[in-house]
Amino acid sequence: MKAWKVIYNDWIPEKQPTREALTTLGNGYFAARGAAEESDAGGPHYPGTYLACGYNRMTSKVSGREVENEDLVNWANWLSLKFRIEDGDWFDLEKVEIIKYRNELDLKSGILKRTVGFVDQEGRESLLISRRLVHMKFSHLAAIEWKITPQNWSGKIEVQSAIDGTVTNSGVDRYSDLRGDHLKPLFTKQVDDKCIMLVVKTKQSKIRMAQSARTTVFSDDEPISADSEITEKEGYIAQYLTFNAEQNKTVRVEKIVGLHTSRDNAISEPALEACNAVQRAGNFEDLLTSHTREWKQLWYRCDLELEEGEYTQMILRLHIFHILQTASANTIDLDVGIPARGWHGEAYRGHIFWDELFVFPFLNFQLPELARSLLMYRYRRLPEARRAARNAGFKGAMFPWQSGSNGREESQELHLNPKSGEWDRDDTYLQRHVGAAIAYNIHQYFEATRDLEFMSFYGAEMLLEIARFWSSIAEWNPDRERFEIRGVVGPDEFHTQYPDSDKPGLNNNAYTNVMAVWVLQKALNMVEQLSETRKVELFEELDIDESELERWEKITRKMYVPFIKKGIISQFERYDDLQEMDWDKYRKKYDDVQRMDRILKAEGDTPNRYKVGKQADVLMLFYLFSVEQLKEIFNRLGYEFEPSSIPENVDYYLKRSSHGSTLSRLVYSWVMSRSDRERSWKAFQKALLSDFEDVQGGTTSEGIHLGAMAGTVDIVQRCYTGLEIRDGVLWINPRLPRELQSLKMRIRYRGHWIHFLFNHKIVEVTFEAGWSPKVEIGFREKVYTFGEGDRKTFSL
Amino acid sequence: MKAWKVIYNDWIPEKQPTREALTTLGNGYFAARGAAEESDAGGPHYPGTYLACGYNRMTSKVSGREVENEDLVNWANWLSLKFRIEDGDWFDLEKVEIIKYRNELDLKSGILKRTVGFVDQEGRESLLISRRLVHMKFSHLAAIEWKITPQNWSGKIEVQSAIDGTVTNSGVDRYSDLRGDHLKPLFTKQVDDKCIMLVVKTKQSKIRMAQSARTTVFSDDEPISADSEITEKEGYIAQYLTFNAEQNKTVRVEKIVGLHTSRDNAISEPALEACNAVQRAGNFEDLLTSHTREWKQLWYRCDLELEEGEYTQMILRLHIFHILQTASANTIDLDVGIPARGWHGEAYRGHIFWDELFVFPFLNFQLPELARSLLMYRYRRLPEARRAARNAGFKGAMFPWQSGSNGREESQELHLNPKSGEWDRDDTYLQRHVGAAIAYNIHQYFEATRDLEFMSFYGAEMLLEIARFWSSIAEWNPDRERFEIRGVVGPDEFHTQYPDSDKPGLNNNAYTNVMAVWVLQKALNMVEQLSETRKVELFEELDIDESELERWEKITRKMYVPFIKKGIISQFERYDDLQEMDWDKYRKKYDDVQRMDRILKAEGDTPNRYKVGKQADVLMLFYLFSVEQLKEIFNRLGYEFEPSSIPENVDYYLKRSSHGSTLSRLVYSWVMSRSDRERSWKAFQKALLSDFEDVQGGTTSEGIHLGAMAGTVDIVQRCYTGLEIRDGVLWINPRLPRELQSLKMRIRYRGHWIHFLFNHKIVEVTFEAGWSPKVEIGFREKVYTFGEGDRKTFSL
Repeated sequence: MKAWKVIYNDWIPEKQPTREALTTLGNGYFAARGAAEESDAGGPHYPGTYLACGYNRMTSKVSGREVENEDLVNWANWLSLKFRIEDGDWFDLEKVEIIKYRNELDLKSGILKRTVGFVDQEGRESLLISRRLVHMKFSHLAAIEWKITPQNWSGKIEVQSAIDGTVTNSGVDRYSDLRGDHLKPLFTKQVDDKCIMLVVKTKQSKIRMAQSARTTVFSDDEPISADSEITEKEGYIAQYLTFNAEQNKTVRVEKIVGLHTSRDNAISEPALEACNAVQRAGNFEDLLTSHTREWKQLWYRCDLELEEGEYTQMILRLHIFHILQTASANTIDLDVGIPARGWHGEAYRGHIFWDELFVFPFLNFQLPELARSLLMYRYRRLPEARRAARNAGFKGAMFPWQSGSNGREESQELHLNPKSGEWDRDDTYLQRHVGAAIAYNIHQYFEATRDLEFMSFYGAEMLLEIARFWSSIAEWNPDRERFEIRGVVGPDEFHTQYPDSDKPGLNNNAYTNVMAVWVLQKALNMVEQLSETRKVELFEELDIDESELERWEKITRKMYVPFIKKGIISQFERYDDLQEMDWDKYRKKYDDVQRMDRILKAEGDTPNRYKVGKQADVLMLFYLFSVEQLKEIFNRLGYEFEPSSIPENVDYYLKRSSHGSTLSRLVYSWVMSRSDRERSWKAFQKALLSDFEDVQGGTTSEGIHLGAMAGTVDIVQRCYTGLEIRDGVLWINPRLPRELQSLKMRIRYRGHWIHFLFNHKIVEVTFEAGWSPKVEIGFREKVYTFGEGDRKTFSL
Repeated sequence: MKAWKVIYNDWIPEKQPTREALTTLGNGYFAARGAAEESDAGGPHYPGTYLACGYNRMTSKVSGREVENEDLVNWANWLSLKFRIEDGDWFDLEKVEIIKYRNELDLKSGILKRTVGFVDQEGRESLLISRRLVHMKFSHLAAIEWKITPQNWSGKIEVQSAIDGTVTNSGVDRYSDLRGDHLKPLFTKQVDDKCIMLVVKTKQSKIRMAQSARTTVFSDDEPISADSEITEKEGYIAQYLTFNAEQNKTVRVEKIVGLHTSRDNAISEPALEACNAVQRAGNFEDLLTSHTREWKQLWYRCDLELEEGEYTQMILRLHIFHILQTASANTIDLDVGIPARGWHGEAYRGHIFWDELFVFPFLNFQLPELARSLLMYRYRRLPEARRAARNAGFKGAMFPWQSGSNGREESQELHLNPKSGEWDRDDTYLQRHVGAAIAYNIHQYFEATRDLEFMSFYGAEMLLEIARFWSSIAEWNPDRERFEIRGVVGPDEFHTQYPDSDKPGLNNNAYTNVMAVWVLQKALNMVEQLSETRKVELFEELDIDESELERWEKITRKMYVPFIKKGIISQFERYDDLQEMDWDKYRKKYDDVQRMDRILKAEGDTPNRYKVGKQADVLMLFYLFSVEQLKEIFNRLGYEFEPSSIPENVDYYLKRSSHGSTLSRLVYSWVMSRSDRERSWKAFQKALLSDFEDVQGGTTSEGIHLGAMAGTVDIVQRCYTGLEIRDGVLWINPRLPRELQSLKMRIRYRGHWIHFLFNHKIVEVTFEAGWSPKVEIGFREKVYTFGEGDRKTFSL
């Protein structure tokens, strides 16, 4: 059971423990809609879960310039619950003597439990056990339960149960100059003797949000009468319940909370629905039962069961847990994407980046309906991406680097460097590669599901428009007789321009150019397969003709890819002209050189001058494509590509990376998994710790790094198993690390549930009964047909 | 081309022409979100398109009782456009001499064109040609164009272009006691010198809606300068444009309108988006081009091309046109269902009934993504249906007869009888059969698409819950040794209780009982095919066990079905005890006996005493099921069923029906299509005219009868072709009416586009290229496999 729980027993008031930051609860809906901030103990600031509600026209002045920020809302303290004994001080962890402290995140059931034994200044000893959940099935509900047991006293207890709409965003220090007040209070209301309600509206996006809370006190599972009093002020309502407690007799306080917004489907009006939700909900125990059942079912689908030291298993589950808190069945019907930091903290203000690239592989195989809905999030923003392309002088669709609520580019133009206190120019918006990631996700989703209706009606249109963008940004260089893509930035954000140039952007970023080729090729393949009806529709509507396709075809043969020397791909053109970093010098000077960009800029220098990477984007190619695929792409382009050059590239770039991105180690681990298993496992272990140990020193509490979390899950699910869909066949090619004895998992593939058992000797494949057509599974050059109920064991 | 246009040249001021009522434009989005009321000419009231926004807690007093009504909104007069010459009266069709009048609904392009030649009181002759569209691709846009040509004068023209948020609901006389003011004005704004804006909120549901309008005047396609003035009052903004016009020189006024609501996806804030929409839109001609292209593509998919007199073809296209105005690609992403009267009028206040049963067959085969989204509309309301079942003492899900915005029962409890002026008690809410219709739609959608993910994750859950409801409402009668369903109402709403009873509800309505059996059988089949993973999930969650399944199985063998005599199914138990109607007596006394219920009630009598049907619900069984299927159901139940009894049943009930429902003739036409082709064709022709000729005398202007419209389309698509999916095979069994020479159509079936040509000699089947797996087509006992590009001609 240990691998199902994240436990820590240490209470360190002066420090905000990182693992606390990981224990926020959401359920997708609640996460993307509301907040989960528990202020019961005046203790550490628990990062909330957030709601992105459109960019904020109410701009803030930053360093003399106007900066817009999203209506990202850390919603009301729904778990605001306080108590005091005999009119004393309100309970505060910092003002009592802690004699016992245990915090336990139960991943299996999605419950956070805290046990605090304490003695107050009057010498009264009490035991407080709190449990809370954000309901995984009934997505509009959350609940907290307190058990208070007086150990050496009897007397009056007063509980304050509030809904607080005056919360502001203050979770990220360097955003302190941005506006943090996103809520406009509308009204508060006492619904009945148990229920209170708060209704607010977001300031810019005008989303109406209603929250209702029902608080009840129990003794021996019977409700006990308590004196009730209500306090209301603007944007805040609290209910005070006073009752008597006896020594050694546990009283239980339950607070059930309902949340609805004006963006919910199937509602009449949010306030009415929030009230209904709470009044119709059962008590804490009922909710716990249904919540636990839902988690059990989710784990049955999504768990990766390892035979290994329990530490890896536990963190892996924590990562799966956080994926499911950000996106789940509860978000399928919401128009939300995958934010880089989950809905877990304020960093990046809820914007949607390319990070979903790392989350899709998991979702495609576990919750394909969810993956579909995330692609629809992009599809809905296709018109805005088209407009962005047109405005930048291109055709097709140019998806933004940081996507705001309506799909417009929301990348900051300035970035606060905490090292120097300066606001530096930020040209990372030139990362045009995000569209390629979306195309990749569409392709992968389709391969895993064969969802023809999706592909025909939405996927194809996106794919064509993204392909067109690449075709239009690629320019023919007659001297070189190659197409080029100039003036962009790759995933490695340390490099945004040439040191000898005053214009931002780099030329021929290898990752970008190869991805562009891949997208064009996939678009061409797709056109061949598309039905005539749909093809005619799309070609008419998008004004695509055969000459356009000919150009695509030509680009897939003639795109320029820079090389440093034979086999070593150049991150971008003229990368080799940059200076080598004197790593020793900086390692001596600074404890942590992960963010070399900030260090160099603070010294008046710039990473643009050096061969130093936040992450080595060349290696992303080895992460995304198998050797077979890369060979095909490069050969078609007329470049030599030998599988043996992969480790050379890895070595070259590993030396030159500061791992300033949490994604960096992940990619290393993946690409080395077969060539250098020891180093790969080490990198994997480090990647696992990104958030768990907060390796960046403080960024975890600003929000988890969901891409990195999902990436570790993906390494186990796809890299160690060699799971790959190629030419309509699901290939397996397992190579478990020595440290991993076995791996059990289930995947959903083209309408089948397939159970896998991998160990160092065999692979066992079992198909559940079901009504899907047979599919093919490939193992060591041979292809086998599987249908319902089939089982086969392959020897390694 | 004639069959593509609905044209009428007659201007009848004192009467509201029915065909005018058919010319409202929507596009799904605009329909379900906004309104399309043109008041340019002070002429006939054009029914608008509406928005259902939750039930209205602001109840109205009706006949001493409180009645709730939906926030159904006839939204702002977005096409409010007036003009006057030289400070004269504002143009009013009733105050000028009409010398030419032509109204033309171009079905092919979705454009309404009106030509009016007139002479005003000062003898000035002018020609006014207006065209309008609600954009089928850019769903947030609509546009109107006016061409004004002075024939014998030159002078000043003043145009008033307004957005009017003060509109109220007044389209249905008998609702006049209900509140009609659903909008609360928020603000008006002049955005720039061309754009004005109105923002309102619905009163109960608090939906924020923003509308922006850009009005420009052109001469020779060049914008001309006009003096502009703005008038604002609460909920209303108008722009006055004054310019000079010359004799014989046409001036053109364009008004482009954008509409967004707070329920839209991918937005920042509705007002901002509505502004953006209008400012980014091209001019009228641009919009016309993209709008026409979209319609062309839609028709390519959806048209049924007949070789026949053009009248049938034209009305059939009008019906397809109206289906697509109510639901289209633009509604897929909205949480909206299929309202009985489209979004076309105020009747039934936007509630969702079982009528979608008649619309699904068409959508399944033409726009399966849309069909899926309509099923999701029901899925989202499953929790409310569960609650309704529990509250009524049943298990599972009991979907409401009239479904309100959040899925709660919204059936009226009183119904105004226009014959008597009395508010009669209305027990039609006891129509529990709506859940069976939903199950039927799920099944049909799945058969047409094999959408496994939908079925597994949503469809199965609904199907199980609906099955459970039937199981729990069915009671074992030990005397009869049969299960019974007591206290319900069938689709024939004339009968709601026994004349000798004071309790509403009838026992053993044959349609309901057979449907219950069918649902239980389908649910049992589905359980067998469901993957183990999903089965365990659902059984745990819904608390279903094997004993429940055994009960279902038993009901499918032991349900009671009443018979009048051998072969003649009894509409409900003891139907035969009712009195025969003296039709002659009433036909002499009343012009129109379609609504015998109102006639009898006004006479102090009740249809409950007589063998008289609004529609013969027994015949619905022959409509929904093939002979083979019915045989199986009845044999399993231990009842004899001979195909030869079908015409006998038809005869029996045809004599006893007043066709008070527009669905009635439809069903007759279908069930007689093979046994009595002449009568079937006649009934079909009558069904075609339901709205076109407003056979109910005034109900068309309260909203089209979408179920009846779709049903006529379905008769052509499925009944004349014998298209039926049975055991995974798509069977065709064509029998065109003699009057129909040939029929061409395309369907989307399991990822394929299939082109059909039917005539009296052959059937030609052509598969488009595509990437879907092969499927089977059955013809005369033989099954053929078809894959991409295959073509085959069958001789008849």
